[in-house]
Amino acid sequence: MRMKHKPWAESYLQSHPSIAIQEPELRKGKWLQAAGKTKLHIEIGSGKGQFITQLAAQHPDWLFIAVEKHESVVVSVLQKCIEQGLNNLCILNVDAERLTECFADNEVDVFYLNFSDPWPKKRHMKRRLSHAGFLNHYAQMLTNEGQLQMKTDNQGLFIFSLESFSQNGWGMEAISFDLHHQIEMDPTIENIETEYEEKFSAKGQPIYTLTAKPLSNRTETVE
Amino acid sequence: MRMKHKPWAESYLQSHPSIAIQEPELRKGKWLQAAGKTKLHIEIGSGKGQFITQLAAQHPDWLFIAVEKHESVVVSVLQKCIEQGLNNLCILNVDAERLTECFADNEVDVFYLNFSDPWPKKRHMKRRLSHAGFLNHYAQMLTNEGQLQMKTDNQGLFIFSLESFSQNGWGMEAISFDLHHQIEMDPTIENIETEYEEKFSAKGQPIYTLTAKPLSNRTETVE
Repeated sequence: MRMKHKPWAESYLQSHPSIAIQEPELRKGKWLQAAGKTKLHIEIGSGKGQFITQLAAQHPDWLFIAVEKHESVVVSVLQKCIEQGLNNLCILNVDAERLTECFADNEVDVFYLNFSDPWPKKRHMKRRLSHAGFLNHYAQMLTNEGQLQMKTDNQGLFIFSLESFSQNGWGMEAISFDLHHQIEMDPTIENIETEYEEKFSAKGQPIYTLTAKPLSNRTETVE
Repeated sequence: MRMKHKPWAESYLQSHPSIAIQEPELRKGKWLQAAGKTKLHIEIGSGKGQFITQLAAQHPDWLFIAVEKHESVVVSVLQKCIEQGLNNLCILNVDAERLTECFADNEVDVFYLNFSDPWPKKRHMKRRLSHAGFLNHYAQMLTNEGQLQMKTDNQGLFIFSLESFSQNGWGMEAISFDLHHQIEMDPTIENIETEYEEKFSAKGQPIYTLTAKPLSNRTETVE
Protein backbone atom coordinates (compact mmCIF):
# COMPACT_ATOMS: atom_id res chain seq x y z
CA MET A 1 0.00 0.00 0.00
CA ARG A 2 1.32 3.46 -0.83
CA MET A 3 1.39 5.73 2.18
CA LYS A 4 1.60 9.50 2.39
CA HIS A 5 2.99 10.95 5.58
CA LYS A 6 0.18 12.71 7.40
CA PRO A 7 1.53 15.02 10.11
CA TRP A 8 -1.96 15.51 11.57
CA ALA A 9 -2.60 11.76 11.99
CA GLU A 10 -1.36 11.42 15.57
CA SER A 11 -3.40 14.24 17.03
CA TYR A 12 -6.48 13.20 15.00
CA LEU A 13 -6.29 9.70 16.52
CA GLN A 14 -5.71 11.12 19.99
CA SER A 15 -8.76 13.32 19.71
CA HIS A 16 -10.98 10.21 19.35
CA PRO A 17 -9.88 8.03 22.26
CA SER A 18 -13.15 6.09 22.42
CA ILE A 19 -12.49 4.71 18.92
CA ALA A 20 -8.71 4.85 18.55
CA ILE A 21 -7.86 3.14 21.83
CA GLN A 22 -4.71 4.60 23.38
CA GLU A 23 -3.98 2.02 26.08
CA PRO A 24 -5.47 -1.21 24.75
CA GLU A 25 -3.63 -3.27 27.40
CA LEU A 26 -6.07 -1.90 29.98
CA ARG A 27 -8.99 -3.57 28.18
CA LYS A 28 -7.36 -7.00 28.03
CA GLY A 29 -9.96 -9.63 28.97
CA LYS A 30 -12.70 -6.98 29.19
CA TRP A 31 -13.32 -5.87 25.60
CA LEU A 32 -16.81 -7.30 25.19
CA GLN A 33 -17.93 -6.37 28.67
CA ALA A 34 -16.72 -2.77 28.23
CA ALA A 35 -18.45 -2.45 24.85
CA GLY A 36 -21.62 -4.36 25.76
CA LYS A 37 -21.24 -6.59 22.69
CA THR A 38 -21.44 -10.37 22.18
CA LYS A 39 -18.64 -11.34 19.77
CA LEU A 40 -15.14 -10.06 19.17
CA HIS A 41 -13.80 -9.96 15.58
CA ILE A 42 -10.33 -8.61 14.81
CA GLU A 43 -8.84 -7.73 11.44
CA ILE A 44 -5.05 -7.68 11.52
CA GLY A 45 -3.78 -5.21 8.94
CA SER A 46 -6.96 -3.30 8.19
CA GLY A 47 -5.52 -0.87 5.69
CA LYS A 48 -8.06 1.86 5.02
CA GLY A 49 -10.84 -0.16 6.63
CA GLN A 50 -13.35 -0.84 3.85
CA PHE A 51 -13.73 -4.48 4.91
CA ILE A 52 -14.03 -4.04 8.67
CA THR A 53 -16.33 -1.00 8.54
CA GLN A 54 -18.77 -2.79 6.21
CA LEU A 55 -18.72 -5.85 8.44
CA ALA A 56 -19.27 -3.72 11.54
CA ALA A 57 -22.26 -2.02 9.92
CA GLN A 58 -23.81 -5.46 9.21
CA HIS A 59 -23.39 -6.77 12.76
CA PRO A 60 -24.23 -4.05 15.30
CA ASP A 61 -24.17 -6.50 18.25
CA TRP A 62 -20.58 -7.57 17.69
CA LEU A 63 -17.41 -5.65 18.46
CA PHE A 64 -14.89 -5.21 15.65
CA ILE A 65 -11.29 -4.20 16.05
CA ALA A 66 -9.13 -2.85 13.25
CA VAL A 67 -5.45 -3.48 13.95
CA GLU A 68 -3.18 -1.43 11.70
CA LYS A 69 0.35 -0.35 12.51
CA HIS A 70 0.58 2.48 9.96
CA GLU A 71 -0.70 5.67 11.55
CA SER A 72 -1.17 7.44 8.21
CA VAL A 73 -3.43 4.59 7.01
CA VAL A 74 -5.40 3.97 10.17
CA VAL A 75 -6.77 7.52 10.08
CA SER A 76 -8.85 6.46 7.07
CA VAL A 77 -10.49 3.79 9.22
CA LEU A 78 -11.24 6.41 11.84
CA GLN A 79 -12.75 8.72 9.20
CA LYS A 80 -15.01 5.94 7.87
CA CYS A 81 -16.03 4.97 11.40
CA ILE A 82 -17.07 8.55 12.24
CA GLU A 83 -18.82 9.15 8.89
CA GLN A 84 -20.87 5.97 9.29
CA GLY A 85 -21.58 6.59 12.98
CA LEU A 86 -20.39 3.11 13.97
CA ASN A 87 -20.40 2.42 17.70
CA ASN A 88 -18.99 -1.10 17.45
CA LEU A 89 -15.58 -0.53 15.93
CA CYS A 90 -12.32 0.18 17.72
CA ILE A 91 -8.97 0.96 16.18
CA LEU A 92 -5.64 -0.26 17.50
CA ASN A 93 -2.62 1.48 16.05
CA VAL A 94 -0.24 -1.31 17.17
CA ASP A 95 1.99 -3.96 15.66
CA ALA A 96 0.51 -7.50 15.38
CA GLU A 97 3.30 -8.72 17.67
CA ARG A 98 1.71 -6.86 20.56
CA LEU A 99 -1.70 -8.55 20.29
CA THR A 100 -1.25 -10.87 23.28
CA GLU A 101 -0.61 -7.80 25.44
CA CYS A 102 -4.04 -6.50 24.42
CA PHE A 103 -6.21 -9.66 24.31
CA ALA A 104 -6.61 -12.43 26.88
CA ASP A 105 -6.72 -16.17 26.25
CA ASN A 106 -10.09 -17.28 24.86
CA GLU A 107 -11.21 -13.72 24.17
CA VAL A 108 -11.37 -13.55 20.36
CA ASP A 109 -14.04 -15.15 18.14
CA VAL A 110 -12.62 -14.43 14.69
CA PHE A 111 -9.34 -13.16 13.26
CA TYR A 112 -9.19 -11.87 9.68
CA LEU A 113 -5.98 -11.73 7.67
CA ASN A 114 -6.82 -9.92 4.44
CA PHE A 115 -4.14 -9.45 1.80
CA SER A 116 -1.35 -9.44 4.35
CA ASP A 117 2.14 -8.44 3.33
CA PRO A 118 3.63 -11.59 1.72
CA TRP A 119 7.21 -10.84 2.87
CA PRO A 120 8.51 -12.93 -0.04
CA LYS A 121 12.15 -13.05 1.06
CA LYS A 122 13.03 -16.13 3.10
CA ARG A 123 14.90 -14.06 5.68
CA HIS A 124 11.67 -12.13 6.40
CA MET A 125 9.61 -15.32 6.80
CA LYS A 126 8.95 -14.72 10.52
CA ARG A 127 7.16 -11.48 9.68
CA ARG A 128 4.46 -13.28 7.66
CA LEU A 129 1.25 -13.15 9.69
CA SER A 130 0.73 -16.89 9.20
CA HIS A 131 4.15 -17.80 10.60
CA ALA A 132 4.18 -20.30 13.51
CA GLY A 133 5.03 -17.56 16.02
CA PHE A 134 1.84 -15.66 15.23
CA LEU A 135 -0.33 -18.80 14.88
CA ASN A 136 0.46 -19.93 18.40
CA HIS A 137 -0.58 -16.54 19.73
CA TYR A 138 -3.81 -16.50 17.70
CA ALA A 139 -4.65 -20.02 18.99
CA GLN A 140 -4.19 -18.80 22.55
CA MET A 141 -6.46 -15.77 22.08
CA LEU A 142 -9.21 -17.62 20.17
CA THR A 143 -12.26 -19.05 21.91
CA ASN A 144 -12.90 -22.80 21.58
CA GLU A 145 -15.25 -22.15 18.69
CA GLY A 146 -12.97 -19.45 17.29
CA GLN A 147 -11.54 -19.30 13.79
CA LEU A 148 -9.24 -17.38 11.49
CA GLN A 149 -10.24 -16.35 7.97
CA MET A 150 -7.61 -15.49 5.41
CA LYS A 151 -7.78 -13.98 1.91
CA THR A 152 -4.84 -13.27 -0.35
CA ASP A 153 -3.94 -12.90 -4.01
CA ASN A 154 -0.39 -14.03 -3.31
CA GLN A 155 0.07 -17.71 -4.18
CA GLY A 156 3.40 -17.88 -2.38
CA LEU A 157 1.93 -16.58 0.87
CA PHE A 158 -1.09 -18.85 0.47
CA ILE A 159 1.00 -21.99 0.03
CA PHE A 160 3.22 -20.95 2.95
CA SER A 161 0.06 -20.51 5.03
CA LEU A 162 -1.41 -23.92 4.07
CA GLU A 163 1.85 -25.52 5.21
CA SER A 164 2.18 -23.39 8.33
CA PHE A 165 -1.39 -23.88 9.57
CA SER A 166 -1.24 -27.66 9.04
CA GLN A 167 2.21 -28.03 10.62
CA ASN A 168 1.10 -26.09 13.67
CA GLY A 169 -1.99 -28.17 14.29
CA TRP A 170 -4.72 -26.08 12.69
CA GLY A 171 -7.48 -27.72 10.68
CA MET A 172 -8.56 -25.91 7.52
CA GLU A 173 -11.88 -25.72 5.70
CA ALA A 174 -13.58 -23.59 3.03
CA ILE A 175 -10.35 -23.47 1.01
CA SER A 176 -10.78 -21.78 -2.36
CA PHE A 177 -8.26 -21.18 -5.14
CA ASP A 178 -10.55 -18.68 -6.87
CA LEU A 179 -13.08 -17.06 -4.56
CA HIS A 180 -14.59 -14.72 -7.15
CA HIS A 181 -15.18 -17.52 -9.65
CA GLN A 182 -16.93 -19.43 -6.86
CA ILE A 183 -19.12 -16.42 -6.11
CA GLU A 184 -20.06 -16.18 -9.80
CA MET A 185 -21.20 -19.81 -9.62
CA ASP A 186 -22.97 -19.34 -6.28
CA PRO A 187 -24.04 -15.73 -5.58
CA THR A 188 -25.24 -16.67 -2.07
CA ILE A 189 -21.61 -16.85 -0.89
CA GLU A 190 -21.03 -13.83 1.35
CA ASN A 191 -17.94 -11.77 0.69
CA ILE A 192 -16.97 -8.25 1.66
CA GLU A 193 -14.23 -6.93 -0.58
CA THR A 194 -11.24 -4.99 0.70
CA GLU A 195 -10.04 -1.97 -1.32
CA TYR A 196 -7.15 -4.01 -2.61
CA GLU A 197 -9.35 -6.98 -3.52
CA GLU A 198 -11.70 -4.77 -5.52
CA LYS A 199 -8.90 -3.52 -7.76
CA PHE A 200 -7.16 -6.85 -7.97
CA SER A 201 -10.12 -9.11 -8.74
CA ALA A 202 -11.28 -6.69 -11.44
CA LYS A 203 -8.20 -7.84 -13.37
CA GLY A 204 -9.53 -11.41 -13.21
CA GLN A 205 -6.71 -12.70 -11.03
CA PRO A 206 -7.63 -15.37 -8.49
CA ILE A 207 -8.19 -14.69 -4.80
CA TYR A 208 -7.25 -17.52 -2.44
CA THR A 209 -9.13 -18.09 0.81
CA LEU A 210 -9.15 -20.43 3.79
CA THR A 211 -10.69 -20.77 7.23
CA ALA A 212 -8.55 -22.31 9.97
CA LYS A 213 -9.24 -23.54 13.51
CA PRO A 214 -6.76 -24.80 16.09
CA LEU A 215 -7.28 -28.56 16.50
CA SER A 216 -6.40 -28.30 20.19
CA ASN A 217 -9.29 -25.90 20.78
CA ARG A 218 -11.59 -28.26 18.91
CA THR A 219 -10.59 -31.15 21.18
CA GLU A 220 -11.39 -29.10 24.26
CA THR A 221 -14.81 -28.36 22.81
CA VAL A 222 -15.51 -32.04 22.24
CA GLU A 223 -14.61 -33.02 25.81
CA MET B 1 -8.64 -45.36 -16.70
CA ARG B 2 -10.18 -47.48 -19.46
CA MET B 3 -9.97 -51.15 -18.69
CA LYS B 4 -10.33 -54.10 -21.03
CA HIS B 5 -11.39 -57.37 -19.45
CA LYS B 6 -8.46 -59.76 -19.63
CA PRO B 7 -9.59 -63.35 -18.97
CA TRP B 8 -5.97 -64.51 -18.68
CA ALA B 9 -5.12 -61.96 -15.94
CA GLU B 10 -5.89 -64.14 -12.95
CA SER B 11 -3.81 -67.13 -14.00
CA TYR B 12 -0.96 -64.86 -15.18
CA LEU B 13 -0.79 -63.25 -11.71
CA GLN B 14 -1.02 -66.66 -10.00
CA SER B 15 1.87 -67.97 -12.05
CA HIS B 16 4.19 -65.31 -10.54
CA PRO B 17 3.55 -65.65 -6.80
CA SER B 18 6.90 -64.16 -5.80
CA ILE B 19 5.88 -60.83 -7.39
CA ALA B 20 2.06 -60.86 -7.28
CA ILE B 21 1.71 -61.80 -3.63
CA GLN B 22 -1.28 -64.09 -3.06
CA GLU B 23 -1.54 -63.97 0.74
CA PRO B 24 -0.10 -60.59 1.71
CA GLU B 25 -1.49 -60.89 5.26
CA LEU B 26 1.18 -63.52 5.97
CA ARG B 27 3.94 -60.95 5.38
CA LYS B 28 2.45 -58.33 7.74
CA GLY B 29 5.28 -56.88 9.85
CA LYS B 30 7.90 -58.88 7.92
CA TRP B 31 8.01 -57.30 4.46
CA LEU B 32 11.48 -55.81 4.68
CA GLN B 33 12.98 -58.75 6.48
CA ALA B 34 11.57 -61.20 3.93
CA ALA B 35 12.85 -59.14 1.00
CA GLY B 36 16.20 -58.15 2.55
CA LYS B 37 15.54 -54.46 1.80
CA THR B 38 15.87 -51.31 3.91
CA LYS B 39 12.82 -49.12 3.11
CA LEU B 40 9.22 -49.84 2.25
CA HIS B 41 7.44 -47.60 -0.30
CA ILE B 42 3.84 -48.25 -1.33
CA GLU B 43 1.90 -46.76 -4.22
CA ILE B 44 -1.85 -47.00 -3.73
CA GLY B 45 -3.54 -47.21 -7.12
CA SER B 46 -0.56 -47.99 -9.33
CA GLY B 47 -2.41 -48.20 -12.60
CA LYS B 48 -0.11 -49.70 -15.23
CA GLY B 49 2.94 -49.13 -13.04
CA GLN B 50 5.12 -46.65 -14.95
CA PHE B 51 5.80 -44.62 -11.79
CA ILE B 52 6.54 -47.44 -9.36
CA THR B 53 8.66 -49.50 -11.76
CA GLN B 54 10.89 -46.51 -12.58
CA LEU B 55 11.26 -45.69 -8.90
CA ALA B 56 12.09 -49.33 -8.08
CA ALA B 57 14.77 -49.36 -10.78
CA GLN B 58 16.37 -46.26 -9.22
CA HIS B 59 16.47 -47.66 -5.66
CA PRO B 60 17.48 -51.33 -5.70
CA ASP B 61 17.90 -51.46 -1.89
CA TRP B 62 14.32 -50.47 -1.16
CA LEU B 63 11.17 -52.56 -1.47
CA PHE B 64 8.31 -51.15 -3.53
CA ILE B 65 4.74 -52.34 -3.46
CA ALA B 66 2.18 -51.59 -6.15
CA VAL B 67 -1.34 -51.75 -4.77
CA GLU B 68 -3.96 -51.90 -7.51
CA LYS B 69 -7.41 -53.41 -7.20
CA HIS B 70 -8.09 -53.83 -10.93
CA GLU B 71 -6.77 -57.23 -12.03
CA SER B 72 -6.80 -56.28 -15.71
CA VAL B 73 -4.57 -53.26 -14.99
CA VAL B 74 -2.21 -54.81 -12.48
CA VAL B 75 -1.04 -57.34 -15.07
CA SER B 76 0.71 -54.45 -16.85
CA VAL B 77 2.73 -53.81 -13.69
CA LEU B 78 3.68 -57.47 -13.60
CA GLN B 79 4.73 -57.37 -17.27
CA LYS B 80 6.96 -54.31 -16.67
CA CYS B 81 8.45 -55.88 -13.56
CA ILE B 82 9.41 -59.07 -15.44
CA GLU B 83 10.72 -57.22 -18.53
CA GLN B 84 12.94 -55.01 -16.37
CA GLY B 85 14.07 -57.87 -14.15
CA LEU B 86 13.17 -55.99 -10.97
CA ASN B 87 13.67 -57.96 -7.73
CA ASN B 88 12.41 -55.21 -5.41
CA LEU B 89 8.81 -54.80 -6.51
CA CYS B 90 5.76 -56.66 -5.24
CA ILE B 91 2.21 -56.38 -6.48
CA LEU B 92 -0.87 -56.50 -4.31
CA ASN B 93 -4.14 -56.96 -6.15
CA VAL B 94 -6.22 -55.73 -3.18
CA ASP B 95 -8.48 -52.85 -2.26
CA ALA B 96 -6.89 -49.96 -0.30
CA GLU B 97 -9.31 -50.70 2.54
CA ARG B 98 -7.45 -53.93 3.23
CA LEU B 99 -4.03 -52.33 3.76
CA THR B 100 -4.01 -52.59 7.55
CA GLU B 101 -4.51 -56.34 7.17
CA CYS B 102 -1.30 -56.48 5.15
CA PHE B 103 0.98 -53.96 6.90
CA ALA B 104 1.83 -53.57 10.57
CA ASP B 105 2.03 -50.35 12.58
CA ASN B 106 5.24 -48.43 11.86
CA GLU B 107 6.10 -50.59 8.86
CA VAL B 108 5.79 -48.18 5.91
CA ASP B 109 8.25 -45.40 5.01
CA VAL B 110 6.37 -43.72 2.16
CA PHE B 111 2.89 -43.88 0.66
CA TYR B 112 2.22 -42.48 -2.82
CA LEU B 113 -1.22 -41.38 -3.99
CA ASN B 114 -0.86 -40.56 -7.68
CA PHE B 115 -3.87 -39.29 -9.62
CA SER B 116 -6.32 -41.12 -7.39
CA ASP B 117 -9.97 -41.35 -8.38
CA PRO B 118 -11.48 -37.99 -7.28
CA TRP B 119 -14.91 -39.48 -6.49
CA PRO B 120 -16.48 -36.05 -7.09
CA LYS B 121 -19.94 -36.87 -5.73
CA LYS B 122 -20.42 -35.98 -2.09
CA ARG B 123 -22.05 -39.32 -1.32
CA HIS B 124 -18.85 -41.08 -2.47
CA MET B 125 -16.60 -38.87 -0.32
CA LYS B 126 -15.52 -41.75 1.94
CA ARG B 127 -14.01 -43.53 -1.05
CA ARG B 128 -11.49 -40.71 -1.68
CA LEU B 129 -8.07 -42.02 -0.66
CA SER B 130 -7.44 -38.87 1.39
CA HIS B 131 -10.62 -39.27 3.46
CA ALA B 132 -10.17 -39.34 7.27
CA GLY B 133 -10.82 -43.08 7.41
CA PHE B 134 -7.84 -43.82 5.17
CA LEU B 135 -5.60 -41.15 6.72
CA ASN B 136 -5.89 -42.68 10.17
CA HIS B 137 -4.83 -46.06 8.78
CA TYR B 138 -1.90 -44.56 6.86
CA ALA B 139 -0.74 -42.77 10.02
CA GLN B 140 -0.81 -46.06 11.90
CA MET B 141 1.24 -47.89 9.27
CA LEU B 142 3.81 -45.12 8.74
CA THR B 143 7.12 -45.06 10.60
CA ASN B 144 7.90 -42.01 12.76
CA GLU B 145 9.85 -40.48 9.89
CA GLY B 146 7.28 -41.68 7.35
CA GLN B 147 5.41 -39.54 4.86
CA LEU B 148 2.76 -39.55 2.17
CA GLN B 149 3.26 -37.94 -1.23
CA MET B 150 0.29 -36.99 -3.37
CA LYS B 151 -0.04 -35.80 -6.97
CA THR B 152 -3.26 -34.97 -8.75
CA ASP B 153 -4.62 -32.86 -11.59
CA ASN B 154 -8.00 -32.65 -9.89
CA GLN B 155 -8.39 -29.34 -8.02
CA GLY B 156 -11.48 -30.57 -6.17
CA LEU B 157 -9.68 -33.63 -4.81
CA PHE B 158 -6.62 -31.52 -3.98
CA ILE B 159 -8.60 -28.98 -1.95
CA PHE B 160 -10.49 -31.80 -0.21
CA SER B 161 -7.12 -33.36 0.65
CA LEU B 162 -5.63 -30.11 2.02
CA GLU B 163 -8.65 -29.83 4.31
CA SER B 164 -8.69 -33.51 5.26
CA PHE B 165 -4.97 -33.78 6.05
CA SER B 166 -5.00 -30.61 8.18
CA GLN B 167 -8.21 -31.56 10.01
CA ASN B 168 -6.83 -34.98 10.85
CA GLY B 169 -3.58 -33.69 12.31
CA TRP B 170 -1.18 -34.06 9.39
CA GLY B 171 1.41 -31.37 8.66
CA MET B 172 1.97 -30.58 4.98
CA GLU B 173 5.04 -29.36 3.11
CA ALA B 174 6.29 -29.10 -0.47
CA ILE B 175 2.84 -28.00 -1.65
CA SER B 176 2.77 -27.01 -5.31
CA PHE B 177 -0.09 -25.74 -7.45
CA ASP B 178 1.86 -26.33 -10.67
CA LEU B 179 4.57 -28.95 -10.36
CA HIS B 180 5.65 -28.92 -13.99
CA HIS B 181 6.06 -25.14 -14.06
CA GLN B 182 8.22 -25.48 -10.94
CA ILE B 183 10.35 -28.13 -12.65
CA GLU B 184 10.82 -25.83 -15.66
CA MET B 185 12.14 -23.18 -13.26
CA ASP B 186 14.27 -25.66 -11.32
CA PRO B 187 15.24 -28.78 -13.32
CA THR B 188 16.92 -30.35 -10.26
CA ILE B 189 13.47 -31.17 -8.81
CA GLU B 190 13.04 -34.94 -9.10
CA ASN B 191 9.78 -36.17 -10.58
CA ILE B 192 8.79 -39.49 -12.09
CA GLU B 193 5.73 -39.13 -14.28
CA THR B 194 2.84 -41.55 -14.25
CA GLU B 195 1.27 -42.53 -17.60
CA TYR B 196 -1.67 -40.28 -16.85
CA GLU B 197 0.54 -37.35 -15.80
CA GLU B 198 2.53 -37.58 -19.04
CA LYS B 199 -0.58 -37.14 -21.19
CA PHE B 200 -2.16 -34.59 -18.92
CA SER B 201 0.77 -32.24 -18.35
CA ALA B 202 1.49 -32.22 -22.09
CA LYS B 203 -1.74 -30.22 -22.39
CA GLY B 204 -0.26 -27.61 -20.05
CA GLN B 205 -2.73 -28.22 -17.24
CA PRO B 206 -1.40 -27.86 -13.70
CA ILE B 207 -0.43 -30.80 -11.51
CA TYR B 208 -0.95 -30.29 -7.77
CA THR B 209 1.35 -31.95 -5.23
CA LEU B 210 1.84 -32.17 -1.48
CA THR B 211 3.82 -34.13 1.08
CA ALA B 212 2.11 -34.89 4.40
CA LYS B 213 3.29 -36.29 7.74
CA PRO B 214 1.21 -37.17 10.80
CA LEU B 215 1.97 -34.61 13.52
CA SER B 216 1.56 -37.29 16.19
CA ASN B 217 4.37 -39.33 14.65
CA ARG B 218 6.56 -36.22 14.53
CA THR B 219 6.03 -35.63 18.24
CA GLU B 220 7.11 -39.17 19.02
CA THR B 221 10.26 -38.59 16.98
CA VAL B 222 11.09 -35.43 18.89
CA GLU B 223 10.78 -37.12 22.28
